Amino acid sequence: MRFVRFAEKGEEGLAIEEHGVLHGLLATDRNFPGTLDSLVSDSEAIADAAVKLRAGKRITAAIDYLAPFTASKKIICVGLNYRDHSAESGYAQPPYPTVFGRFTSSLIGHKTAMVRPQLSNTLDYEGELVAVIGKGGSKIAEQDALDHVAGYSIFNDGSIREFQHITPQWTIGKNFDSTGAFGPAFVTADELPAGCLGLTLETRLNGQVVQHAKIDDMVFSVAELVALMSRTMTLEPGDMIVTGTPSGVGAARKPQLFMKPGDICEVEIEKLGVLVNTVVDETADAQAAA
Amino acid sequence: MRFVRFAEKGEEGLAIEEHGVLHGLLATDRNFPGTLDSLVSDSEAIADAAVKLRAGKRITAAIDYLAPFTASKKIICVGLNYRDHSAESGYAQPPYPTVFGRFTSSLIGHKTAMVRPQLSNTLDYEGELVAVIGKGGSKIAEQDALDHVAGYSIFNDGSIREFQHITPQWTIGKNFDSTGAFGPAFVTADELPAGCLGLTLETRLNGQVVQHAKIDDMVFSVAELVALMSRTMTLEPGDMIVTGTPSGVGAARKPQLFMKPGDICEVEIEKLGVLVNTVVDETADAQAAA
Repeated sequence: MRFVRFAEKGEEGLAIEEHGVLHGLLATDRNFPGTLDSLVSDSEAIADAAVKLRAGKRITAAIDYLAPFTASKKIICVGLNYRDHSAESGYAQPPYPTVFGRFTSSLIGHKTAMVRPQLSNTLDYEGELVAVIGKGGSKIAEQDALDHVAGYSIFNDGSIREFQHITPQWTIGKNFDSTGAFGPAFVTADELPAGCLGLTLETRLNGQVVQHAKIDDMVFSVAELVALMSRTMTLEPGDMIVTGTPSGVGAARKPQLFMKPGDICEVEIEKLGVLVNTVVDETADAQAAA
Repeated sequence: MRFVRFAEKGEEGLAIEEHGVLHGLLATDRNFPGTLDSLVSDSEAIADAAVKLRAGKRITAAIDYLAPFTASKKIICVGLNYRDHSAESGYAQPPYPTVFGRFTSSLIGHKTAMVRPQLSNTLDYEGELVAVIGKGGSKIAEQDALDHVAGYSIFNDGSIREFQHITPQWTIGKNFDSTGAFGPAFVTADELPAGCLGLTLETRLNGQVVQHAKIDDMVFSVAELVALMSRTMTLEPGDMIVTGTPSGVGAARKPQLFMKPGDICEVEIEKLGVLVNTVVDETADAQAAA
């Protein structure tokens, strides 16, 4: 099942996508099954939601895509999870997953503009696979780990490189408003190969391929990440594991290739879709309005 | 006003503390004003809550203290915010706040046991001041920043040093279950000097003073932290800024001084109270139960 969270004229809704067609309901509709945040812990509730949404109206009007989840208690981002990216970034490959956190305030949806802040012009792309936890737990064995993953989506871990490296910790450069693009759809795990193994990830900037890798190239697989994270912290329904980016980021290129207003960045993962975002400059108005 | 979130026989409640006496209500009581998470954005609601709680029953039974906030969308932890701690940790003082994230799954309350995990015996204390955002915003000017802080509390940023330094990012070592002690009370800003300037922070391990500093020694003050964080990310009600620890941590001592089962760690900040936590080992049962 493929779910799309959207807004129509500012009103939130949820849709199911089948054969490229969306059917859905608004949150104010009587049969609205709830948000993905509220459904994700219960696979039966997800299946019931699909039935209700299929019976909803066909969506033909213009919609705004929203980030599929916005109430996740953890957004666990994994860095240095592809060897060639670790190398291009100048890091020795660590023996354990390299983790930093994102906050939900940085999230945007598909076809929403990523914002290059006034503070820095070093906005960079990072195409990534996201795994979303359905069943929580701790000390999860690796062989059981994928049973805890409700489904997957695509992430563009937009990074303000200057702030990522202004201190020893990357977190501030990974949490600018409107830099974490997420979507277009949440795809349940049953539609995909186990752990998304075998799938290809590709990032394109203005049509040019800038990242291309197999999910199999990850140092720590989805199953390993779930197991390892759960050794140290209790995973909860809706927790996101953003699994890291392969080589080809703009900061490691010569010359460096940062995103600028008008750019279009696409992250495609086979069977998951294409996450498309334009880039805009933060306006002086936005700066002042706050 | 000093608020204490608690559980009595497993049922959540909220109390006001005056002259060392608690009066409060359970969440099931008719006049329960709501959780601190829900009240924090509205100073009038906080004042109304105080009136309701004062009229509640005097709490004389044994209670469990809970972390004052548990739905915070961001727990922004600031590292290297006291020069002597940066030096003892071997870091050059960065020119910007060094930030990492904590997840709510790591939080515990006052008088709850901090857990030394089976994976490592390098559990270390870090006494810190926490500022809690009341009024959200972005691009907040430094002169307005303290108007956005609803109040303060105490934090023991329990760190598993081995995991903090196993990769270039500290986050995993800062997010073990039951390592982030928080409380005992949430104290509204009007009871305290602006930005808590002038107050003294002291950490004691088994009665021995191990950290002692003035809040004024912070490299970036509360007002500066609020302003700087809000330049990059929108602050939301309930967001916590955990402002960093002074020198004296166990990892920097010779010999190193890590916490072990049976230890009692106290973090005291003048006018805020004393956060007391014992230390227990994660049991094989806990390991298996998960």
